[in-house]
Amino acid sequence: MSKAVILISGGLDSATTAALARDLGFDLYGMTFRYGQRHAVEVEAAKRVAGAVGLADHVIVDIDPLVFHGSSLVSGGDVPPDVPKDRSDDDISVGIPSTYVPARNTIFLSYALAWAEVLGTGDIFIGVNALDYSGYPDCRPDYVAAFQAMANLATRDAVEGRLPVTIHTPLIEMSKADIIGTGLALGVDYGMTTSCYDPAADGAACGRCDSCQLRLKGFAGAGIGDPIAYQDIPDRAD
Amino acid sequence: MSKAVILISGGLDSATTAALARDLGFDLYGMTFRYGQRHAVEVEAAKRVAGAVGLADHVIVDIDPLVFHGSSLVSGGDVPPDVPKDRSDDDISVGIPSTYVPARNTIFLSYALAWAEVLGTGDIFIGVNALDYSGYPDCRPDYVAAFQAMANLATRDAVEGRLPVTIHTPLIEMSKADIIGTGLALGVDYGMTTSCYDPAADGAACGRCDSCQLRLKGFAGAGIGDPIAYQDIPDRAD
Repeated sequence: MSKAVILISGGLDSATTAALARDLGFDLYGMTFRYGQRHAVEVEAAKRVAGAVGLADHVIVDIDPLVFHGSSLVSGGDVPPDVPKDRSDDDISVGIPSTYVPARNTIFLSYALAWAEVLGTGDIFIGVNALDYSGYPDCRPDYVAAFQAMANLATRDAVEGRLPVTIHTPLIEMSKADIIGTGLALGVDYGMTTSCYDPAADGAACGRCDSCQLRLKGFAGAGIGDPIAYQDIPDRAD
Repeated sequence: MSKAVILISGGLDSATTAALARDLGFDLYGMTFRYGQRHAVEVEAAKRVAGAVGLADHVIVDIDPLVFHGSSLVSGGDVPPDVPKDRSDDDISVGIPSTYVPARNTIFLSYALAWAEVLGTGDIFIGVNALDYSGYPDCRPDYVAAFQAMANLATRDAVEGRLPVTIHTPLIEMSKADIIGTGLALGVDYGMTTSCYDPAADGAACGRCDSCQLRLKGFAGAGIGDPIAYQDIPDRAD
Protein backbone atom coordinates (compact mmCIF):
# COMPACT_ATOMS: atom_id res chain seq x y z
CA MET A 1 0.00 0.00 0.00
CA SER A 2 1.10 3.56 -0.63
CA LYS A 3 1.74 5.64 2.45
CA ALA A 4 0.09 8.99 3.03
CA VAL A 5 0.30 11.53 5.81
CA ILE A 6 -3.08 12.83 6.95
CA LEU A 7 -3.88 15.76 9.22
CA ILE A 8 -6.45 14.71 11.82
CA SER A 9 -8.08 17.40 13.95
CA GLY A 10 -10.85 15.30 15.45
CA GLY A 11 -13.49 17.20 13.47
CA LEU A 12 -15.92 15.75 11.00
CA ASP A 13 -14.00 16.93 7.94
CA SER A 14 -10.77 15.17 8.83
CA ALA A 15 -12.67 12.03 9.92
CA THR A 16 -14.33 11.93 6.51
CA THR A 17 -11.05 12.61 4.72
CA ALA A 18 -9.41 9.73 6.61
CA ALA A 19 -12.19 7.37 5.58
CA LEU A 20 -11.88 8.51 1.94
CA ALA A 21 -8.09 8.14 1.96
CA ARG A 22 -8.28 4.67 3.43
CA ASP A 23 -10.95 3.76 0.87
CA LEU A 24 -8.47 4.82 -1.83
CA GLY A 25 -6.04 2.25 -0.43
CA PHE A 26 -3.56 4.46 1.40
CA ASP A 27 -1.68 3.32 4.48
CA LEU A 28 -2.27 6.33 6.74
CA TYR A 29 0.07 8.21 9.05
CA GLY A 30 -1.88 10.71 11.13
CA MET A 31 -0.70 14.00 12.59
CA THR A 32 -2.61 15.95 15.22
CA PHE A 33 -1.49 19.24 16.73
CA ARG A 34 -1.77 20.65 20.21
CA TYR A 35 -1.31 24.41 19.93
CA GLY A 36 -3.09 25.91 22.91
CA GLN A 37 -6.48 25.65 21.26
CA ARG A 38 -9.46 26.37 23.52
CA HIS A 39 -11.11 23.26 22.17
CA ALA A 40 -8.33 20.87 23.25
CA VAL A 41 -10.96 18.14 23.54
CA GLU A 42 -10.45 17.78 19.80
CA VAL A 43 -7.12 16.03 20.46
CA GLU A 44 -9.03 13.29 22.29
CA ALA A 45 -11.49 13.15 19.41
CA ALA A 46 -8.56 12.84 16.99
CA LYS A 47 -7.33 9.80 18.91
CA ARG A 48 -10.77 8.21 18.65
CA VAL A 49 -10.94 8.92 14.92
CA ALA A 50 -7.41 7.54 14.45
CA GLY A 51 -8.32 4.37 16.31
CA ALA A 52 -11.50 3.85 14.32
CA VAL A 53 -9.95 4.38 10.88
CA GLY A 54 -6.93 2.21 11.67
CA LEU A 55 -3.80 4.29 11.15
CA ALA A 56 -0.32 2.86 10.69
CA ASP A 57 0.89 5.53 13.10
CA HIS A 58 -0.50 8.61 14.83
CA VAL A 59 1.59 11.39 16.31
CA ILE A 60 0.49 14.29 18.49
CA VAL A 61 2.78 17.25 17.85
CA ASP A 62 3.08 20.22 20.20
CA ILE A 63 3.34 23.68 18.68
CA ASP A 64 4.33 26.66 20.78
CA PRO A 65 1.12 28.71 20.96
CA LEU A 66 2.97 32.02 20.96
CA VAL A 67 2.93 32.08 17.17
CA PHE A 68 -0.86 31.93 17.23
CA HIS A 69 -1.60 34.57 19.86
CA GLY A 70 -4.42 36.95 19.09
CA SER A 71 -6.75 34.30 17.73
CA SER A 72 -9.91 33.82 19.76
CA LEU A 73 -9.31 30.08 19.35
CA VAL A 74 -5.98 30.13 21.20
CA SER A 75 -5.25 30.89 24.84
CA GLY A 76 -2.48 33.27 25.88
CA GLY A 77 -0.91 36.49 24.68
CA ASP A 78 -3.01 39.60 24.74
CA VAL A 79 -6.55 38.81 25.78
CA PRO A 80 -8.11 37.31 22.69
CA PRO A 81 -11.61 38.32 21.64
CA ASP A 82 -14.43 35.93 22.41
CA VAL A 83 -15.41 33.17 20.04
CA PRO A 84 -18.30 34.66 18.06
CA LYS A 85 -21.70 33.10 18.71
CA ASP A 86 -25.15 33.10 17.14
CA ARG A 87 -24.01 34.70 13.90
CA SER A 88 -26.31 34.59 10.89
CA ASP A 89 -25.45 32.51 7.82
CA ASP A 90 -24.70 35.76 6.00
CA ASP A 91 -22.27 36.89 8.68
CA ILE A 92 -20.53 33.52 8.72
CA SER A 93 -20.11 33.57 4.95
CA VAL A 94 -18.47 37.04 4.82
CA GLY A 95 -14.98 37.97 6.02
CA ILE A 96 -12.53 36.16 8.25
CA PRO A 97 -13.59 35.90 11.91
CA SER A 98 -11.53 36.17 15.12
CA THR A 99 -11.26 32.38 15.27
CA TYR A 100 -8.80 32.59 12.38
CA VAL A 101 -5.41 31.24 13.53
CA PRO A 102 -2.36 32.81 11.84
CA ALA A 103 -0.77 30.54 9.22
CA ARG A 104 -2.14 27.47 10.96
CA ASN A 105 -2.56 25.21 7.95
CA THR A 106 0.81 26.37 6.60
CA ILE A 107 2.51 25.18 9.77
CA PHE A 108 0.48 21.96 9.85
CA LEU A 109 1.18 21.16 6.19
CA SER A 110 4.87 21.99 6.66
CA TYR A 111 5.12 19.40 9.41
CA ALA A 112 3.24 16.93 7.21
CA LEU A 113 5.64 17.66 4.36
CA ALA A 114 8.67 16.91 6.53
CA TRP A 115 7.20 13.73 7.98
CA ALA A 116 6.06 12.56 4.54
CA GLU A 117 9.63 12.82 3.24
CA VAL A 118 10.91 10.92 6.31
CA LEU A 119 8.32 8.21 5.62
CA GLY A 120 9.11 8.11 1.91
CA THR A 121 5.91 9.44 0.45
CA GLY A 122 4.72 12.59 -1.29
CA ASP A 123 1.00 12.10 -0.55
CA ILE A 124 -0.60 14.35 2.06
CA PHE A 125 -4.31 14.56 2.89
CA ILE A 126 -6.02 17.53 4.52
CA GLY A 127 -9.76 17.94 5.06
CA VAL A 128 -10.04 21.60 4.13
CA ASN A 129 -13.31 22.81 2.72
CA ALA A 130 -14.03 26.10 0.99
CA LEU A 131 -17.80 25.95 0.70
CA ASP A 132 -19.42 25.62 4.15
CA TYR A 133 -16.48 27.18 6.01
CA SER A 134 -15.41 30.22 8.01
CA GLY A 135 -13.58 32.04 5.23
CA TYR A 136 -10.11 31.09 6.44
CA PRO A 137 -7.72 31.86 3.56
CA ASP A 138 -5.66 28.72 4.12
CA CYS A 139 -8.63 26.48 3.28
CA ARG A 140 -9.06 27.70 -0.31
CA PRO A 141 -8.04 25.89 -3.53
CA ASP A 142 -5.59 28.59 -4.68
CA TYR A 143 -3.79 28.45 -1.33
CA VAL A 144 -3.52 24.65 -1.49
CA ALA A 145 -2.21 24.82 -5.07
CA ALA A 146 0.41 27.37 -4.04
CA PHE A 147 1.48 25.24 -1.09
CA GLN A 148 1.85 22.22 -3.35
CA ALA A 149 3.92 24.23 -5.86
CA MET A 150 6.19 25.45 -3.05
CA ALA A 151 6.48 21.94 -1.60
CA ASN A 152 7.68 20.56 -4.92
CA LEU A 153 10.61 23.01 -4.77
CA ALA A 154 11.29 22.42 -1.07
CA THR A 155 12.20 18.79 -0.47
CA ARG A 156 15.08 16.67 -1.70
CA ASP A 157 12.84 13.83 -2.84
CA ALA A 158 10.62 16.22 -4.79
CA VAL A 159 13.34 18.20 -6.53
CA GLU A 160 15.24 15.03 -7.38
CA GLY A 161 12.07 13.66 -8.97
CA ARG A 162 11.51 10.66 -6.71
CA LEU A 163 8.50 11.84 -4.73
CA PRO A 164 6.43 14.65 -6.20
CA VAL A 165 4.24 16.17 -3.50
CA THR A 166 0.46 16.02 -3.84
CA ILE A 167 -1.78 17.79 -1.34
CA HIS A 168 -5.04 15.84 -1.51
CA THR A 169 -8.14 17.85 -0.58
CA PRO A 170 -11.07 15.57 -1.41
CA LEU A 171 -13.62 17.74 0.45
CA ILE A 172 -12.60 21.13 -0.84
CA GLU A 173 -15.63 21.72 -3.09
CA MET A 174 -18.19 19.70 -1.10
CA SER A 175 -21.03 21.04 1.02
CA LYS A 176 -21.09 20.03 4.67
CA ALA A 177 -24.17 17.89 3.96
CA ASP A 178 -22.32 16.09 1.15
CA ILE A 179 -19.32 15.54 3.41
CA ILE A 180 -21.53 13.96 6.04
CA GLY A 181 -23.34 11.82 3.48
CA THR A 182 -20.01 10.65 2.06
CA GLY A 183 -18.68 9.76 5.49
CA LEU A 184 -21.80 7.89 6.52
CA ALA A 185 -21.60 5.80 3.34
CA LEU A 186 -18.04 4.88 4.37
CA GLY A 187 -19.09 3.98 7.91
CA VAL A 188 -17.78 7.03 9.73
CA ASP A 189 -19.19 7.36 13.25
CA TYR A 190 -19.53 11.12 13.68
CA GLY A 191 -20.28 10.58 17.36
CA MET A 192 -16.49 10.33 17.80
CA THR A 193 -15.87 13.76 16.31
CA THR A 194 -16.02 17.26 17.74
CA SER A 195 -16.37 20.61 15.97
CA CYS A 196 -17.20 23.16 18.67
CA TYR A 197 -14.80 26.06 19.18
CA ASP A 198 -15.91 26.62 22.76
CA PRO A 199 -17.04 23.34 24.29
CA ALA A 200 -18.06 22.82 27.92
CA ALA A 201 -15.65 21.06 30.28
CA ASP A 202 -17.43 17.77 29.59
CA GLY A 203 -16.93 18.26 25.84
CA ALA A 204 -20.56 19.16 25.07
CA ALA A 205 -20.76 21.48 22.07
CA CYS A 206 -22.09 25.02 22.46
CA GLY A 207 -24.28 24.81 19.36
CA ARG A 208 -23.80 28.53 18.78
CA CYS A 209 -20.29 29.14 17.42
CA ASP A 210 -19.70 29.27 13.66
CA SER A 211 -18.31 25.74 13.63
CA CYS A 212 -21.30 24.29 15.49
CA GLN A 213 -23.67 26.16 13.20
CA LEU A 214 -21.94 24.87 10.06
CA ARG A 215 -22.03 21.36 11.48
CA LEU A 216 -25.69 21.51 12.48
CA LYS A 217 -26.62 22.91 9.08
CA GLY A 218 -24.73 20.02 7.49
CA PHE A 219 -26.58 17.37 9.49
CA ALA A 220 -29.88 19.09 8.77
CA GLY A 221 -29.03 19.12 5.07
CA ALA A 222 -28.07 15.46 5.19
CA GLY A 223 -31.43 14.77 6.80
CA ILE A 224 -30.13 13.04 9.90
CA GLY A 225 -29.47 13.95 13.52
CA ASP A 226 -26.04 14.82 14.87
CA PRO A 227 -24.99 12.10 17.35
CA ILE A 228 -22.84 14.35 19.57
CA ALA A 229 -23.99 16.09 22.76
CA TYR A 230 -24.89 19.78 22.77
CA GLN A 231 -25.29 22.13 25.70
CA ASP A 232 -28.41 23.47 24.03
CA ILE A 233 -29.67 23.08 20.51
CA PRO A 234 -30.27 26.51 18.98
CA ASP A 235 -33.62 27.21 17.42
CA ARG A 236 -32.01 27.95 14.09
CA ALA A 237 -30.57 24.45 13.66
CA ASP A 238 -33.34 23.54 11.28
CA MET B 1 10.49 51.47 12.99
CA SER B 2 9.02 48.67 10.91
CA LYS B 3 9.00 45.27 12.55
CA ALA B 4 10.50 42.21 10.92
CA VAL B 5 10.80 38.59 11.98
CA ILE B 6 14.25 37.13 11.44
CA LEU B 7 15.38 33.51 11.63
CA ILE B 8 18.58 33.26 13.70
CA SER B 9 20.48 29.98 13.69
CA GLY B 10 23.66 31.21 15.32
CA GLY B 11 25.62 30.75 12.11
CA LEU B 12 27.47 33.44 10.23
CA ASP B 13 24.81 33.84 7.54
CA SER B 14 22.01 34.69 9.96
CA ALA B 15 24.32 36.95 12.00
CA THR B 16 25.11 38.90 8.83
CA THR B 17 21.46 38.98 7.81
CA ALA B 18 20.52 40.38 11.22
CA ALA B 19 23.13 43.13 10.90
CA LEU B 20 21.86 43.98 7.40
CA ALA B 21 18.22 44.04 8.50
CA ARG B 22 19.00 46.29 11.45
CA ASP B 23 21.03 48.54 9.16
CA LEU B 24 17.91 48.82 6.97
CA GLY B 25 16.07 50.16 10.02
CA PHE B 26 13.95 47.18 11.01
CA ASP B 27 12.95 46.44 14.57
CA LEU B 28 13.87 42.76 14.76
CA TYR B 29 12.04 39.81 16.29
CA GLY B 30 14.26 36.74 16.26
CA MET B 31 13.24 33.09 16.08
CA THR B 32 15.60 30.22 16.80
CA PHE B 33 14.66 26.56 16.64
CA ARG B 34 15.68 23.58 18.74
CA TYR B 35 14.91 20.48 16.69
CA GLY B 36 17.25 17.78 17.96
CA GLN B 37 20.17 19.08 15.92
CA ARG B 38 23.56 17.52 16.69
CA HIS B 39 25.01 20.98 16.77
CA ALA B 40 22.74 22.30 19.53
CA VAL B 41 25.53 24.68 20.55
CA GLU B 42 24.16 26.84 17.76
CA VAL B 43 21.23 27.77 20.00
CA GLU B 44 23.68 29.34 22.45
CA ALA B 45 25.38 31.09 19.54
CA ALA B 46 21.99 32.38 18.41
CA LYS B 47 21.46 33.92 21.84
CA ARG B 48 24.85 35.65 21.61
CA VAL B 49 24.05 36.96 18.12
CA ALA B 50 20.63 38.14 19.28
CA GLY B 51 22.17 39.97 22.22
CA ALA B 52 24.79 41.66 20.06
CA VAL B 53 22.44 42.83 17.34
CA GLY B 54 19.85 44.08 19.82
CA LEU B 55 16.55 42.37 19.10
CA ALA B 56 13.17 43.60 20.27
CA ASP B 57 12.40 39.98 21.20
CA HIS B 58 13.95 36.57 20.71
CA VAL B 59 12.10 33.28 21.04
CA ILE B 60 13.49 29.77 21.10
CA VAL B 61 10.94 27.39 19.61
CA ASP B 62 11.00 23.62 20.11
CA ILE B 63 10.15 21.43 17.15
CA ASP B 64 9.49 17.72 17.61
CA PRO B 65 12.51 16.10 15.93
CA LEU B 66 10.51 13.13 14.69
CA VAL B 67 9.62 15.01 11.52
CA PHE B 68 13.32 15.37 10.73
CA HIS B 69 14.51 11.82 11.39
CA GLY B 70 16.89 10.33 8.86
CA SER B 71 18.99 13.47 8.52
CA SER B 72 22.56 13.06 9.70
CA LEU B 73 22.13 16.43 11.39
CA VAL B 74 19.35 15.23 13.70
CA SER B 75 19.47 12.66 16.51
CA GLY B 76 16.87 9.92 16.81
CA GLY B 77 14.84 7.67 14.59
CA ASP B 78 16.67 5.09 12.53
CA VAL B 79 20.40 5.48 12.93
CA PRO B 80 21.27 8.45 10.77
CA PRO B 81 24.33 8.36 8.55
CA ASP B 82 27.42 10.20 9.71
CA VAL B 83 27.99 13.85 8.94
CA PRO B 84 30.20 13.77 5.82
CA LYS B 85 33.76 15.03 6.34
CA ASP B 86 36.75 16.04 4.23
CA ARG B 87 34.75 16.26 1.00
CA SER B 88 36.24 18.03 -1.99
CA ASP B 89 34.81 21.32 -3.25
CA ASP B 90 33.42 19.40 -6.23
CA ASP B 91 31.65 16.90 -4.00
CA ILE B 92 30.19 19.66 -1.83
CA SER B 93 28.87 21.51 -4.87
CA VAL B 94 27.03 18.49 -6.36
CA GLY B 95 23.87 16.85 -5.00
CA ILE B 96 22.16 17.09 -1.64
CA PRO B 97 24.09 15.52 1.27
CA SER B 98 22.84 13.52 4.26
CA THR B 99 22.88 16.67 6.39
CA TYR B 100 19.78 17.79 4.49
CA VAL B 101 16.87 18.15 6.94
CA PRO B 102 13.40 17.46 5.48
CA ALA B 103 11.38 20.62 4.85
CA ARG B 104 13.34 22.47 7.53
CA ASN B 105 13.16 25.97 6.09
CA THR B 106 9.50 25.42 5.18
CA ILE B 107 8.70 24.72 8.83
CA PHE B 108 10.91 27.58 10.05
CA LEU B 109 9.40 30.08 7.59
CA SER B 110 5.88 28.89 8.45
CA TYR B 111 6.48 29.70 12.11
CA ALA B 112 7.93 33.05 11.09
CA LEU B 113 4.87 33.72 8.94
CA ALA B 114 2.51 33.05 11.84
CA TRP B 115 4.49 35.14 14.30
CA ALA B 116 4.85 37.97 11.80
CA GLU B 117 1.08 38.18 11.46
CA VAL B 118 0.69 38.16 15.25
CA LEU B 119 3.21 41.01 15.45
CA GLY B 120 1.55 42.93 12.63
CA THR B 121 4.22 42.74 9.95
CA GLY B 122 4.75 41.01 6.63
CA ASP B 123 8.54 41.29 6.60
CA ILE B 124 10.58 38.15 7.23
CA PHE B 125 14.37 37.80 6.92
CA ILE B 126 16.21 34.53 6.33
CA GLY B 127 19.92 34.16 5.67
CA VAL B 128 19.73 31.52 2.96
CA ASN B 129 22.48 31.42 0.40
CA ALA B 130 22.54 29.51 -2.88
CA LEU B 131 26.13 30.05 -3.93
CA ASP B 132 28.56 28.69 -1.31
CA TYR B 133 26.06 26.22 0.13
CA SER B 134 25.29 22.53 0.49
CA GLY B 135 22.73 22.24 -2.29
CA TYR B 136 19.72 22.21 0.03
CA PRO B 137 16.67 22.85 -2.17
CA ASP B 138 15.02 25.11 0.40
CA CYS B 139 17.83 27.67 0.12
CA ARG B 140 17.32 28.48 -3.57
CA PRO B 141 15.66 31.59 -5.06
CA ASP B 142 12.84 29.69 -6.79
CA TYR B 143 11.92 28.00 -3.52
CA VAL B 144 11.86 31.31 -1.66
CA ALA B 145 9.72 32.90 -4.39
CA ALA B 146 7.26 30.00 -4.20
CA PHE B 147 7.09 30.27 -0.41
CA GLN B 148 6.38 33.99 -0.66
CA ALA B 149 3.64 33.39 -3.25
CA MET B 150 2.04 30.78 -1.02
CA ALA B 151 2.33 33.02 2.04
CA ASN B 152 0.47 35.80 0.29
CA LEU B 153 -2.50 33.45 -0.13
CA ALA B 154 -2.23 32.02 3.39
CA THR B 155 -2.72 34.77 5.96
CA ARG B 156 -5.66 37.03 6.71
CA ASP B 157 -3.56 40.19 6.68
CA ALA B 158 -2.05 39.29 3.30
CA VAL B 159 -5.24 38.29 1.52
CA GLU B 160 -7.07 41.32 2.89
CA GLY B 161 -4.29 43.52 1.52
CA ARG B 162 -2.99 44.97 4.77
CA LEU B 163 0.31 43.16 5.08
CA PRO B 164 1.77 41.64 1.93
CA VAL B 165 4.43 39.10 2.87
CA THR B 166 8.03 39.65 1.76
CA ILE B 167 10.68 37.01 2.38
CA HIS B 168 13.92 38.99 2.45
CA THR B 169 17.02 37.01 1.45
CA PRO B 170 19.82 39.59 1.21
CA LEU B 171 22.57 36.94 1.03
CA ILE B 172 21.07 34.62 -1.52
CA GLU B 173 23.40 35.47 -4.41
CA MET B 174 26.50 36.36 -2.35
CA SER B 175 29.67 34.33 -1.97
CA LYS B 176 30.68 33.34 1.55
CA ALA B 177 33.63 35.74 1.32
CA ASP B 178 31.29 38.59 0.36
CA ILE B 179 28.96 37.71 3.22
CA ILE B 180 31.84 37.88 5.69
CA GLY B 181 33.11 41.14 4.22
CA THR B 182 29.63 42.64 4.44
CA GLY B 183 29.23 41.56 8.04
CA LEU B 184 32.63 42.87 9.10
CA ALA B 185 31.79 46.26 7.58
CA LEU B 186 28.67 46.28 9.76
CA GLY B 187 30.60 45.33 12.88
CA VAL B 188 29.57 41.69 13.16
CA ASP B 189 31.75 39.70 15.56
CA TYR B 190 31.94 36.28 13.92
CA GLY B 191 33.57 34.93 17.05
CA MET B 192 30.02 34.65 18.44
CA THR B 193 28.83 32.43 15.62
CA THR B 194 29.10 28.71 14.98
CA SER B 195 28.78 26.78 11.74
CA CYS B 196 30.07 23.26 12.46
CA TYR B 197 27.67 20.35 11.98
CA ASP B 198 29.56 18.12 14.39
CA PRO B 199 31.25 20.25 17.05
CA ALA B 200 33.14 18.91 20.07
CA ALA B 201 31.51 19.05 23.50
CA ASP B 202 33.30 22.35 24.17
CA GLY B 203 31.88 23.79 20.95
CA ALA B 204 35.12 23.67 18.97
CA ALA B 205 34.43 23.22 15.26
CA CYS B 206 35.59 20.06 13.46
CA GLY B 207 36.97 21.96 10.49
CA ARG B 208 36.12 19.04 8.24
CA CYS B 209 32.36 18.97 7.64
CA ASP B 210 30.87 20.74 4.61
CA SER B 211 29.74 23.67 6.72
CA CYS B 212 33.20 24.19 8.26
CA GLN B 213 34.82 23.92 4.85
CA LEU B 214 32.48 26.50 3.33
CA ARG B 215 33.12 28.79 6.28
CA LEU B 216 36.91 28.42 6.14
CA LYS B 217 36.88 29.00 2.40
CA GLY B 218 34.88 32.16 3.02
CA PHE B 219 37.33 33.55 5.56
CA ALA B 220 40.24 32.64 3.31
CA GLY B 221 38.52 34.45 0.44
CA ALA B 222 37.87 37.48 2.64
CA GLY B 223 41.56 37.48 3.51
CA ILE B 224 41.16 37.28 7.28
CA GLY B 225 41.32 34.63 9.95
CA ASP B 226 38.28 32.94 11.44
CA PRO B 227 38.04 33.95 15.13
CA ILE B 228 36.33 30.74 16.33
CA ALA B 229 38.11 27.70 17.80
CA TYR B 230 38.71 24.59 15.71
CA GLN B 231 39.66 21.12 16.83
CA ASP B 232 42.17 21.03 14.01
CA ILE B 233 42.57 23.20 10.98
CA PRO B 234 42.53 21.09 7.84
CA ASP B 235 45.35 21.51 5.37
CA ARG B 236 42.92 22.44 2.66
CA ALA B 237 41.64 25.56 4.41
CA ASP B 238 43.77 27.80 2.24
